[in-house]
Amino acid sequence: MAGSPANDAPHRLIDGVTFGENVVVFPFTNLYGCEIGDDTRIGPFVEIQRGVRIGANCKIQSHTFICTGVEIEDDAFVGHGVLFVNDKYPRVSGEWEQLQTVVEHGASLGSGAVILGGVRIGREALVGAGAVVSHDVDPGQTVVGNPARPLER
Amino acid sequence: MAGSPANDAPHRLIDGVTFGENVVVFPFTNLYGCEIGDDTRIGPFVEIQRGVRIGANCKIQSHTFICTGVEIEDDAFVGHGVLFVNDKYPRVSGEWEQLQTVVEHGASLGSGAVILGGVRIGREALVGAGAVVSHDVDPGQTVVGNPARPLER
Amino acid sequence: MAGSPANDAPHRLIDGVTFGENVVVFPFTNLYGCEIGDDTRIGPFVEIQRGVRIGANCKIQSHTFICTGVEIEDDAFVGHGVLFVNDKYPRVSGEWEQLQTVVEHGASLGSGAVILGGVRIGREALVGAGAVVSHDVDPGQTVVGNPARPLER
Repeated sequence: MAGSPANDAPHRLIDGVTFGENVVVFPFTNLYGCEIGDDTRIGPFVEIQRGVRIGANCKIQSHTFICTGVEIEDDAFVGHGVLFVNDKYPRVSGEWEQLQTVVEHGASLGSGAVILGGVRIGREALVGAGAVVSHDVDPGQTVVGNPARPLER
Repeated sequence: MAGSPANDAPHRLIDGVTFGENVVVFPFTNLYGCEIGDDTRIGPFVEIQRGVRIGANCKIQSHTFICTGVEIEDDAFVGHGVLFVNDKYPRVSGEWEQLQTVVEHGASLGSGAVILGGVRIGREALVGAGAVVSHDVDPGQTVVGNPARPLER
Repeated sequence: MAGSPANDAPHRLIDGVTFGENVVVFPFTNLYGCEIGDDTRIGPFVEIQRGVRIGANCKIQSHTFICTGVEIEDDAFVGHGVLFVNDKYPRVSGEWEQLQTVVEHGASLGSGAVILGGVRIGREALVGAGAVVSHDVDPGQTVVGNPARPLER
């Protein structure tokens, strides 16, 4: 574990991040207080918030936002412009419950997916591009649409 | 009112913006010709265009785009990756009508929502994450889906 | 053709891009190995990948991601936060087929649209804001929704 990624790139803000070996972080990134495993790649225009844990050998693609409360296991693919949510009823003030979200080993989230707070996306599951996921996704399952539902084949 | 936010941060482009007291603007932001009220926070990777007015005590979260023609009243929450639109039939050239959009006091827009031009989102309304809003939303109403419809409880 | 855009702006990363005349590139952009035609404008927070070809007189709006495998013809409008995809079953490893996508002359893609790999969007077609396009769109056709379907008038 180390305090900096394996590569150099301009326009990065990295504050208090724990990196595994061989992590690549692209430019225009804002990472703070999170943990990123070996061989994982973080694309441009990505923000990852405090407390997030990302496993080894993941790809986090450009324009994605990963909030506090999210854990991503090894070998997961997170497409471009994926948005995680951690509050059920967002308001500017007042109390709120922070929800925990898990993306299990080898799962794949298509570009533009929105992942609501508190869901678990099972091993090797596939979330279609643009899907809005409001419930758990079973291991190996493919979901698509808004709201996301199992794909009928 | 002042010409700069209350905090310092790198990688900001701020041009001709009028700030209230205690406004916080995060890095990687592109703000020009707009007006931002007291105690409002603007997240990273946000663009706010000329003529936009944002009230006091709002949160504008990361990756959000707010175009000319939008007014956001006090105490509103705008989630991550929210996109506003101000033209009905976008084309690269030719005439077009610029539509006006209002987000009323205390409304909350979930992450990934797309807000078409010309709509009014009422006081304390809640737009679900990933919703595509093409019609007005009544005060206190919750809408979800693509196209956004009132939530059936 | 030239190796740099017509304007100056801070916070741009431009590597091996071929520019036509009078191309404007906004700040916070990441462009590499692509080709951009005369009079086209590229907004902030945009990434365009290697091999992409964009025609003349296009607008590529903020927060948009254009991946390898995409060709955009002249006079096309690509809204804000549009995401292109070029793999059908994204995984972190293993073989994958790179799909080719074409946006024909004068087509218009609304903000927040997600364009799956391998589709052809016909001349002057209109993709609604927030639409998830998984099939070809006929010339002149308007599609909306997730998945995108022809608009019923």
